[in-house]
Amino acid sequence: MSPHQYAQQNHPRFLTELKELVSIPSVSTQPQHNADVQHAADWLTAKLEKIGMSAEQILMPKGRHPLVLGQWLEAGDEAPTVLIYGHYDVQPAEMADGWLTPPFEPTEKDGKLFGRGATDSKVNTMTQLKALESLLQTDGRLPVNVKFIIEGEEESGSENINAFLDAHGDRLNADYGVICDGGIVEPDQPSIVCGLRGIVTAELEVYGPSKDLHSGHYGGSIHNPIQALCEIIAQLHDENGRVTVPGFYDNVRDFSPLEREDLAQIDPYFNQEWDNVAGAPAHWGEIGYSAHERTGIRPTLEINGIAGGYAAEGFKTVLPATAHAKISCRLVANQDPVRIYQLLEKYINELTPDTVMIKLTECDMGASAYLIDMSSHAVKTARQAYETHWGVPAIPEMAGGSVPITAALDPFVSEIVAMGFAHKAGQPHGPNENIILRNYERAIATAITFLQTITKTG
Amino acid sequence: MSPHQYAQQNHPRFLTELKELVSIPSVSTQPQHNADVQHAADWLTAKLEKIGMSAEQILMPKGRHPLVLGQWLEAGDEAPTVLIYGHYDVQPAEMADGWLTPPFEPTEKDGKLFGRGATDSKVNTMTQLKALESLLQTDGRLPVNVKFIIEGEEESGSENINAFLDAHGDRLNADYGVICDGGIVEPDQPSIVCGLRGIVTAELEVYGPSKDLHSGHYGGSIHNPIQALCEIIAQLHDENGRVTVPGFYDNVRDFSPLEREDLAQIDPYFNQEWDNVAGAPAHWGEIGYSAHERTGIRPTLEINGIAGGYAAEGFKTVLPATAHAKISCRLVANQDPVRIYQLLEKYINELTPDTVMIKLTECDMGASAYLIDMSSHAVKTARQAYETHWGVPAIPEMAGGSVPITAALDPFVSEIVAMGFAHKAGQPHGPNENIILRNYERAIATAITFLQTITKTG
Repeated sequence: MSPHQYAQQNHPRFLTELKELVSIPSVSTQPQHNADVQHAADWLTAKLEKIGMSAEQILMPKGRHPLVLGQWLEAGDEAPTVLIYGHYDVQPAEMADGWLTPPFEPTEKDGKLFGRGATDSKVNTMTQLKALESLLQTDGRLPVNVKFIIEGEEESGSENINAFLDAHGDRLNADYGVICDGGIVEPDQPSIVCGLRGIVTAELEVYGPSKDLHSGHYGGSIHNPIQALCEIIAQLHDENGRVTVPGFYDNVRDFSPLEREDLAQIDPYFNQEWDNVAGAPAHWGEIGYSAHERTGIRPTLEINGIAGGYAAEGFKTVLPATAHAKISCRLVANQDPVRIYQLLEKYINELTPDTVMIKLTECDMGASAYLIDMSSHAVKTARQAYETHWGVPAIPEMAGGSVPITAALDPFVSEIVAMGFAHKAGQPHGPNENIILRNYERAIATAITFLQTITKTG
Repeated sequence: MSPHQYAQQNHPRFLTELKELVSIPSVSTQPQHNADVQHAADWLTAKLEKIGMSAEQILMPKGRHPLVLGQWLEAGDEAPTVLIYGHYDVQPAEMADGWLTPPFEPTEKDGKLFGRGATDSKVNTMTQLKALESLLQTDGRLPVNVKFIIEGEEESGSENINAFLDAHGDRLNADYGVICDGGIVEPDQPSIVCGLRGIVTAELEVYGPSKDLHSGHYGGSIHNPIQALCEIIAQLHDENGRVTVPGFYDNVRDFSPLEREDLAQIDPYFNQEWDNVAGAPAHWGEIGYSAHERTGIRPTLEINGIAGGYAAEGFKTVLPATAHAKISCRLVANQDPVRIYQLLEKYINELTPDTVMIKLTECDMGASAYLIDMSSHAVKTARQAYETHWGVPAIPEMAGGSVPITAALDPFVSEIVAMGFAHKAGQPHGPNENIILRNYERAIATAITFLQTITKTG
């Protein structure tokens, strides 16, 4: 039986196992889910061992959740070594966010599987695991040497993997790095990511009165921290949708007209998906760029959360002591996260009036953007594998999201390629996150073909 | 025994009973406390009956929490009829707001009693109840006819009392109305309120994408609702601290230089209290006015709450579908709440870009401001009563807070006077709300003296 036949015959079980993994609420940002995150790590470790790979868990002193490292290195020197990266942790999810089904009870409906982590990124991790199983269980071996590293802090700072890379990164040395996170532009149109945005995150706290006050008694005589916070935030963009932080765009890589024409191939898909998924009343963004460019080759400053005073049911006439916002900047090629944070900090300090005090805290998710060479052997092999199983050529895409690990793994591999199998409309980080069931099968086939066709010399 | 002696001898029990009432979490804005609000009403009804007054509960079809009406009308036609107003409901309170002791476990410390509702307004309601008890239990009668109306929705829209006033307001007809809410400027300096601000409240919701999105995938191509909300809010004040809503100041009553000089008597107390209680980094507000004037004779627009996206522990890179803020305007003499809401609605609609949608909802707390005639018999009698028991003349004050009931009761009484016994530093609506224990005793004595000295003809 060929690996592809094995994968087809065993697909019902592969789906059951994916659901098992999705049902584990491995939310790495919330300490109350620590045991669940560990459960997911243990589950993956057992699966790796069962299919015939060595498996270990690695927890560095700085780490909170272990890396799972599966290895099979018996393909010989002539075969390339492929490092596959995935993650098993997920974003928080609550019914109140707008879920129609419980986020950790994976539910099939309309040819989709709904659940937190289905798209980001358990479908990707499971795709690789099942491709490896299919190869090992039929051929008794893999065509390449494989190091499969799966982290548990992708959604919460990646401290453990970064500490591991600092100390023992050479253990992951490989010819090729496969970043298995993210997805394709449209369920029937594979795309291959040639750029990922970086990120810097910060929390901005504004302090006014020493305690919460009665807004009748004091209102009008105190600079309300919510108002001051809003006034600062409102000055972070200009009327052309550009970020006003001085120096923010200084090093941003310009794309040539030819490059922009190439990237424009994706526009019809991107715009349709934008209409279907985003559904905002109108487009918005930096003037002079398409929606795909605004999310792919241009940096942003986004407010991801804000809170202050009493905003729940009813009305509380409070003049609050404090208000805060969570801010992230998505970065593009040539922007340095450290410098961007410093520029942001300097500018926000300049914007702060003497009627309030502020505190800006860097959160632990800084990462540079990453551009991938589309002419490399790894990318060509991946594109061919997608074309074989999807039946149409894969088109290039600049992904708006951040996969900080890409830059972090760069020193240890010769070529890197991003192979995601989710679809962008699958609501990663949002409510009702989902994958297309049919694509899970094509994804596993694609991953098998990639491992069968990648060669050491290209 | 005189009523004053009775009050002194029974003060320990009076304090115990105040604590009993404070320990009832009668939060009228939160449905989960409905039974507690009813408990407070029943508790007061029983107390009124016990001291020899008739007592009833009144719940109109629109109401959620009953009015408690206690009456004693046997003083004869020569004696005046005094309508006393109080409320038994309180604002929400949670330890997380910064309480040092559980808000509904009244705690004595440093000569103060801490607890939600201690200041606003259970000390005031209990002061009148205990003054009435002291008179009835010693003289066997009251020197005046009394209608004591205590509402349970002061913090949540006053629908019940407003419906009652519309239908049966004449049942409250009286010569004098005593609004027993609020407090004095400083624990040892009584002040008498000659103006109360009105209020209009609204909730502003901003809608962007149809659902929460991944801020990496879509960030930069969508007008983030939090950002749009902040941009709207930031345009509601100008650089001189003035509200920018067109027409907002059109009808605001100007105060003459002489009037402003009178009001300036309170400035030293007000400014010291501002420093002690508010403790903001710097003064802020409408240029050209003192802090007392900013809170007393000038209208405001305040943001009482804001929420959007993920603002809790950790970081969630979400581009939220919606964000909202709670807005209140404190109004001054001659401003019409209905017109101010309309002006606000019109302006916010003008400020809203076509990249988002908004919804503005009026909350149920609209009320006009109220100016009180300082030369009336009621006010003079009240000032004398304060001076008798505090030892210093009571000074005039423009209160920043809103006591909507003042205007609502105006048609049914000839003269109105505000007699509050809490102190402004007592953190009404905030954490660690408290009263000065010693002042509870002086307050009861003052209330007794007022009822003994108010006459029908002035």
